[in-house]
Amino acid sequence: MQNSGPSSAIELPVGVKDFLPKRAARMKSLEDSLYHEFRLWGYKEIITPAIEHLDVLAKGEPDLLETMFKFEDRVSGRMLVLRPDFTAQIARLVSTHLTEYPAPTRLSYSGSVFHYSGGKVNKQREIYQAGLELIGISNAEADGEVIAVAIGSILNTGLEDFKIDIGQVGFFRGVIEGLDISDSMKKYVEDAIARKDRSGIENLLPSLHLKGSDEEALLAMPTMFGGRDVLDRAHNLSVNKKAKTALDNLSDVLDTIELYGLMDYITVDLGEIRRLNYYSGVIFEGFVSGMGEEICGGGRYDNLLNSYGHNMPATGFAINLESLMKAIDGQCEKEELIRDGFLIVNRNSRRNDASMICKELRAVGVSAVMEIEERDISESFAFAGRENLQGIITIENGGIGKDEIYLHYVDGEDKQKLSMRDLIKKISG
Amino acid sequence: MQNSGPSSAIELPVGVKDFLPKRAARMKSLEDSLYHEFRLWGYKEIITPAIEHLDVLAKGEPDLLETMFKFEDRVSGRMLVLRPDFTAQIARLVSTHLTEYPAPTRLSYSGSVFHYSGGKVNKQREIYQAGLELIGISNAEADGEVIAVAIGSILNTGLEDFKIDIGQVGFFRGVIEGLDISDSMKKYVEDAIARKDRSGIENLLPSLHLKGSDEEALLAMPTMFGGRDVLDRAHNLSVNKKAKTALDNLSDVLDTIELYGLMDYITVDLGEIRRLNYYSGVIFEGFVSGMGEEICGGGRYDNLLNSYGHNMPATGFAINLESLMKAIDGQCEKEELIRDGFLIVNRNSRRNDASMICKELRAVGVSAVMEIEERDISESFAFAGRENLQGIITIENGGIGKDEIYLHYVDGEDKQKLSMRDLIKKISG
Repeated sequence: MQNSGPSSAIELPVGVKDFLPKRAARMKSLEDSLYHEFRLWGYKEIITPAIEHLDVLAKGEPDLLETMFKFEDRVSGRMLVLRPDFTAQIARLVSTHLTEYPAPTRLSYSGSVFHYSGGKVNKQREIYQAGLELIGISNAEADGEVIAVAIGSILNTGLEDFKIDIGQVGFFRGVIEGLDISDSMKKYVEDAIARKDRSGIENLLPSLHLKGSDEEALLAMPTMFGGRDVLDRAHNLSVNKKAKTALDNLSDVLDTIELYGLMDYITVDLGEIRRLNYYSGVIFEGFVSGMGEEICGGGRYDNLLNSYGHNMPATGFAINLESLMKAIDGQCEKEELIRDGFLIVNRNSRRNDASMICKELRAVGVSAVMEIEERDISESFAFAGRENLQGIITIENGGIGKDEIYLHYVDGEDKQKLSMRDLIKKISG
Repeated sequence: MQNSGPSSAIELPVGVKDFLPKRAARMKSLEDSLYHEFRLWGYKEIITPAIEHLDVLAKGEPDLLETMFKFEDRVSGRMLVLRPDFTAQIARLVSTHLTEYPAPTRLSYSGSVFHYSGGKVNKQREIYQAGLELIGISNAEADGEVIAVAIGSILNTGLEDFKIDIGQVGFFRGVIEGLDISDSMKKYVEDAIARKDRSGIENLLPSLHLKGSDEEALLAMPTMFGGRDVLDRAHNLSVNKKAKTALDNLSDVLDTIELYGLMDYITVDLGEIRRLNYYSGVIFEGFVSGMGEEICGGGRYDNLLNSYGHNMPATGFAINLESLMKAIDGQCEKEELIRDGFLIVNRNSRRNDASMICKELRAVGVSAVMEIEERDISESFAFAGRENLQGIITIENGGIGKDEIYLHYVDGEDKQKLSMRDLIKKISG
C-alpha cells in the first residue's frame, strides 16, 4: 500500500506505510481481539512515550543501539531515540514508577516501535505491536501463563493454524559454555546451531578437539526440536548442570501450558536463540507455516529491570500486528462484506427533517451519513455503494409530517415508504 | 506523572510521559467515546506513519517546519520528521491514494503528533490526538457537519460545559487587507486584534492615517465575539467584499449547527486566528472556562491538498485527548471505583482445578487472574484489593469434584462455598 510511482517527490520513507480504511479497520479489530484476551487474564494497559533518551534505553537494550533512530534534542542537546521495543521502556517504567507495587505486575501495551533493520523479512521500520509483561515472578508458571495468553489472544483473532516454538537460552548457553574452546570458536558453533546446520557443525568438529560426549551433544543440537520428547532426548545428553536446570524449567513451563490445554500449539526448539541478549530463560516465537516472519516473540528477561536499579524477574511477549494480519489473510476465509449505515438524502425544502432522521438513527447506534453534496440521486446511490452503506433514505416533498420517507437498500429489496417511527423500528430492530 | 527525582539519569525527555494503568484506561475510553460518534456520522479510520520525509510534509505545513523533530535517514540520507499534525499527512494520503474516490471522503484518525514547542500551555511534545477530515466538499454544510461531530463526540465523553469559538479567516483577512498600510503595520494590527487588545489598537491608530470607517472597523474588531448577533454587528461595519462573503459563509455554517440543535455550545469570535496558515475559511477552537489550553481545534483548508497536486477543498478538526481528560477531571464527578475480575487461588494439590475455573470465567467474559506466587492468603487479599479485583476464589482440598470452591468478595459479604456451576452462574448472572 506504500506510495510509489512517478511523483517520487511525495513518496513515503522506506519501511513505513499508510493503512487505508479497510486495512486500518482490520488492524483495530485485531488489536481489540488481542486486548480482550489480555484483559481476561488480568493485564492492564499502559501508554509509554514514543521518544526516550538514548542513554536510558541503551541501559536495557545495548543490542538494539545500532538499529535505533537517533536524533539530538534541540533544546537539551541530549541524544533521543524512537523506542525500538516496549520491553525496556516498561522495565524503566516499573523501576521508576511502580517499585511500591506488590508483585506480580501485569501490564499490556500497543503501539509502534521503530528500527532501521526492521524485520528480517518484511523490512518494516515502523512495526505495530501489542504485547504484555508479567513482572515480579521468577517461576515457570509465570512463563507458562504468558505463553498461554499469547496463544489465547492469537486464537481470539480467528487464526488457528500456528505454532509457538519454545526454547530455553540456559540450555543452549550451558552447552556452549561447557565447551573447552575459544570464544570466537563458540560464536561459530552458536551460529551453526541457530541455523540448524548439522553439516556446518560436522565441518567444525575436527578443529575443536572436543571430548566425545561434547561432540555428540553438538551434533544432536540441530535435531533438538519437535514435541515434548525433545526434552527426554536432551536429558540423555551429557550436558552440564546449567543446561539440565534449563531443561527442568522448560519442562515445568510445558506443564503449565498443558494445564490450559494448549500443547497442540507448542513445538520445542532447544536450538532457538532470540535476537536480544536480555533474555535469560524460556524464549519463544510464534510461526505460521509458509510464512518467513514470526507473528510473535518473547521470553524471560530476569536481568533487564536491574539495569534500571530494580532487581526483579520478568517475562513477556509482543505480537506483530501486521504479520498476524498477513497470517490471517493466508488462512482464514475472506470476511463477507458487511454493509453498515445509511446515506440520508434530503429532497425536501425543509432541511431539518434530514438532520432529525440522522439524529434518531445515531441515537440507536446506526451510522447516518448526511448527503451534503447536491447531485443526482443515481450518484448518491453509487456513493452509498462505494462507502459500503446498507442503503439510502430519501425525504421527499411531504417530509416527516406526511410520512414521505423512503428507504432503499443497496442490495435488492424495492424502496419502501415509511413513517419516521416505522423507519427507526425497521432499522434498529 | 513524569519521572523525576534523584536518579536523573533515567528521566524521560521533556514533554513526554508515561500513562500508568488508571490514566491509560481513561485515555482509551475517551478515544472510544470519540470514535463511536465519528463512526455514527460515517467517518472511517485510517492509520498513517509516524515518520515522513521532511520535504513532503513541508509542502503542506511550512509553518510547522521550525518546530518539527528532524533527523537524517541513515540509509537514504534524506531528512525525516516525526509527524507534527495529521492534517497534512491525510492531504498527502488522499492526494496519492484516494484520487479516484468520489467525494466526499470522510476519514478519522488517532495517534501522537510531535513538536518542540508543544502546546502554549501544557508544553507537551508528544500530543495525543483523535480527529477527522471531510474532504471534497466546499459548502458550509460540510463545516457545519464537522463542528457538529466535534461537539457530539465531546458530549459523548461526558463533558458538558464547553464552548466552540468559531471564526472565519476570510473576515479577519478581508478587514486587514482592505487597510491602506504597510505589511509590517498590518502584522502589528493583526497581533493586537488576536489579543483582543483594544487599547493597543487605539495607540496604533494615529500612526496609520486610516479613513474613518476603517478606524471604526478596527476598533470594533476586539469586541466581535459573543452570540450570533456578532454577525449582524459585523455586517454593519463598512468592510470589503471578502469580509462580507466570509460573514455570509459563517452564517450558513451556523444554520447547519442550528439544525442539529447545538447552538448552545457555540460562540462566534471574528478575531480568532489559528496558528496554521493553511486555514482558508471557517476556523474553530473548543474551550472550557478556566482552562488555558484548547481541547480541540480545526477548520477549512481548501488549498492544502493542492500542495500535493490534488485540488480539493477540505475541512476537519483534531481533539487533544490529554486536554480533554483534564477538562473532564475538572468538571465531572470522579468515577466510582469499579472492581472487576477475580483472583484464583489454588489451595489444592491438583493444579488443573484452578486453570479450569480461570477458563470458565474467561469464557463468560470475566477477568480471572491466576495467583502464581506462593504466599499467605492475606497477601493474596491485599493484592486483589490493590488490583481492583472484585474478589478471590479459593479452591480448597476437595477441589471442584467436592464443590470446595470458596468465593470471597473484597467489599463486604462473607465467603460462600459453591459448586463450579453455581460459581459461574453467580458471577456471570
